[in-house]
Amino acid sequence: MKKYVIINCKTYREATGDDAFKLAKICDDVAKETDVEIIICPQFTDIYRIAKNVDIPVYAQHVDPVDYGSNTGHVLPESVKAAGSAGSLINHSERRLRLADIEACIEKLKSLGMISVVCTNNINVTKAASALGPDFVAIEPPELIGTGIPVSKAQPEIITGSVDAVNKVNPDVKVLTGAGITTGDDVKKAIELGTCGVLLASGVIKAKNPKDVLMDLVKDI
Amino acid sequence: MKKYVIINCKTYREATGDDAFKLAKICDDVAKETDVEIIICPQFTDIYRIAKNVDIPVYAQHVDPVDYGSNTGHVLPESVKAAGSAGSLINHSERRLRLADIEACIEKLKSLGMISVVCTNNINVTKAASALGPDFVAIEPPELIGTGIPVSKAQPEIITGSVDAVNKVNPDVKVLTGAGITTGDDVKKAIELGTCGVLLASGVIKAKNPKDVLMDLVKDI
Amino acid sequence: MKKYVIINCKTYREATGDDAFKLAKICDDVAKETDVEIIICPQFTDIYRIAKNVDIPVYAQHVDPVDYGSNTGHVLPESVKAAGSAGSLINHSERRLRLADIEACIEKLKSLGMISVVCTNNINVTKAASALGPDFVAIEPPELIGTGIPVSKAQPEIITGSVDAVNKVNPDVKVLTGAGITTGDDVKKAIELGTCGVLLASGVIKAKNPKDVLMDLVKDI
Amino acid sequence: MKKYVIINCKTYREATGDDAFKLAKICDDVAKETDVEIIICPQFTDIYRIAKNVDIPVYAQHVDPVDYGSNTGHVLPESVKAAGSAGSLINHSERRLRLADIEACIEKLKSLGMISVVCTNNINVTKAASALGPDFVAIEPPELIGTGIPVSKAQPEIITGSVDAVNKVNPDVKVLTGAGITTGDDVKKAIELGTCGVLLASGVIKAKNPKDVLMDLVKDI
Repeated sequence: MKKYVIINCKTYREATGDDAFKLAKICDDVAKETDVEIIICPQFTDIYRIAKNVDIPVYAQHVDPVDYGSNTGHVLPESVKAAGSAGSLINHSERRLRLADIEACIEKLKSLGMISVVCTNNINVTKAASALGPDFVAIEPPELIGTGIPVSKAQPEIITGSVDAVNKVNPDVKVLTGAGITTGDDVKKAIELGTCGVLLASGVIKAKNPKDVLMDLVKDI
Repeated sequence: MKKYVIINCKTYREATGDDAFKLAKICDDVAKETDVEIIICPQFTDIYRIAKNVDIPVYAQHVDPVDYGSNTGHVLPESVKAAGSAGSLINHSERRLRLADIEACIEKLKSLGMISVVCTNNINVTKAASALGPDFVAIEPPELIGTGIPVSKAQPEIITGSVDAVNKVNPDVKVLTGAGITTGDDVKKAIELGTCGVLLASGVIKAKNPKDVLMDLVKDI
Repeated sequence: MKKYVIINCKTYREATGDDAFKLAKICDDVAKETDVEIIICPQFTDIYRIAKNVDIPVYAQHVDPVDYGSNTGHVLPESVKAAGSAGSLINHSERRLRLADIEACIEKLKSLGMISVVCTNNINVTKAASALGPDFVAIEPPELIGTGIPVSKAQPEIITGSVDAVNKVNPDVKVLTGAGITTGDDVKKAIELGTCGVLLASGVIKAKNPKDVLMDLVKDI
Repeated sequence: MKKYVIINCKTYREATGDDAFKLAKICDDVAKETDVEIIICPQFTDIYRIAKNVDIPVYAQHVDPVDYGSNTGHVLPESVKAAGSAGSLINHSERRLRLADIEACIEKLKSLGMISVVCTNNINVTKAASALGPDFVAIEPPELIGTGIPVSKAQPEIITGSVDAVNKVNPDVKVLTGAGITTGDDVKKAIELGTCGVLLASGVIKAKNPKDVLMDLVKDI
């Protein structure tokens, strides 16, 4: 089974503009030395430049459930595709969406041939999200995000419970572990618990040496 | 007094990706033949490519009142600046903001040396917005947006009333006329009513020949 | 199997203040002549007075996912319970909630011994909502709400598809048919399609004679 | 000049259902012993019962900018009036509104003969809010809310700056001091700084003896 490491740039200073570009190049370099699929999620304004210059997949951090038309200031899924994105996170805990809009975004991304990663916060929500048929769900208990305390150690039962729930409701959906991931051990544990990889942000982006962290993250998988 | 024509790309199909790029080049060409300042507001994902390739100012359609940090899926003002934007629309009728967030966005844009254009819907709201000290307010009665019925003809008293209100509260704020603008006559009228230009979208973007429309818009000012 | 007719007062003039009170008394009268459970959902401000004066269950139209504390202007589930509500609609198409908030509201209502009715707009969303374990889901394709065109006739496949989906994901969840219901025939059809009743608003509230409409609605079930 | 003490019940346990009722009776008692106008803002579900049983004005904590119609789960200004409210807070920091909606709420409340109190967070926002012509603005720096540190001591320049701004933009608007108010001294200071009273919540509601606190609050004015 293929393994995934998804890097969420958020609006970190270390991942804005030129710095996002440099970080994406590092991810691209590491991806060439591993079988793990590394995916980067830059800010909207950085997608075009990054997608033109790396071979790894680039995902947006969010899309709005809108079509071509009068939607000033919204993030049109077609626009992130045109800029080079192959998919998008949706419903991150910092950008929660209404249920009907999550469904609409998944369908829209599907119709554009794009990958959807729905972030969730507990087993019930993971179950509901997987019923909508996205490509991935990523479980991130909000209280652990950015703490460096890996959910895979602090609350492994949320991960295994989510994997079980998804297998019952929609076994085609791939499950990712999020929140508090910083080391290769965390990734290994996440995979042992039955998920196919991790979604992380500060663990890589705020690191003194992002390349070393990335190499460590993928070394055992 | 300098005159302005601001083109809002919204999420129109004709102003997404390559088409946004072509449209921006047309605006750039026309700007070279006139004293009017033409400004284009592309989607977030198109800002970088356009800003690198045109001489006219590029504004975002929206920014979020956030700082560097954990704000997945939000539009960081610093990110649109890094991509080449010189300013941003805020509070468009299709992307209304909370009052405190408008204030925060104006202050943030100011601190970054960027221009703020606050969209408003009636005289009272224009008065309130101008009290916040943005560079521009753009009055767009929502019921006229996209109709081709120019506010400057349908409801000139909204424009003159807004100009009066702004002059009392904060005369440094420049006023733009929006909603229903499609011809050079509409622009002329808008300027006669005391505003310094127009904000428009479909009138140019949905036109068969955007260049002709743009040339007509700026011909008499 | 018990049958249900839920009346949503929305913010209709005919169901505000004294008029809501009168309407609730009519529902109460009709409920005494039938085995069908009739439930009324008044505006927040009308719950207390109605609940003190009728025997039928009173549900809120919405609750916020908040606890006791600093939540000015929010609808605390404990407050609607204290006023006499036995349950609440949530996620109505006119008051959509974020996925994580729907889950939190269902859990909160459950912990208070209250009934949850989650409104949904299509089969996928119904499936997701039922995975969260509410007492009811009510399917209301938004394009039919208020039209008088019953979903049970216009799009029966949405109802049967939703019933099938719920049965697979969580057979304990009861399914209601919403949108466009105005007659006893519509209710009969809704029940034939496998749901246990209807959610309606204008069909009763805007009727010249709400009592006659109510009597007709329940006559064949 | 008349003085005001407005008590915001928020969703505090001590101000829900029967407890809100008891608190309102206490406010009513104290009001009879002072010239200060005491106003209580209960939760929506408590308005009816309280308004029927006290002589002091009852305000809502929030209203939505909607009219009679299809607005499930929203707070219709007409419904809070029908329940006995004489006014409403709007734009509290825990329930911020969009600028255009604040304006619409003020106009709607005015048309219903109701009082509007717009909460604001800094001098600029106060200036903008007062340009909309509400009856009151209440300045509450969010970082001081619930702290017991009175804004009138911690940041008196925000209060005096706001009073100056309001006097320039719209001298008919009355100004209230909010955030951190707990004692009669705080109220005295608030009035010395040029405001006509205070908006407070936990200082009274979380007090062991709310009546004593209320008596202390009004004793010197």
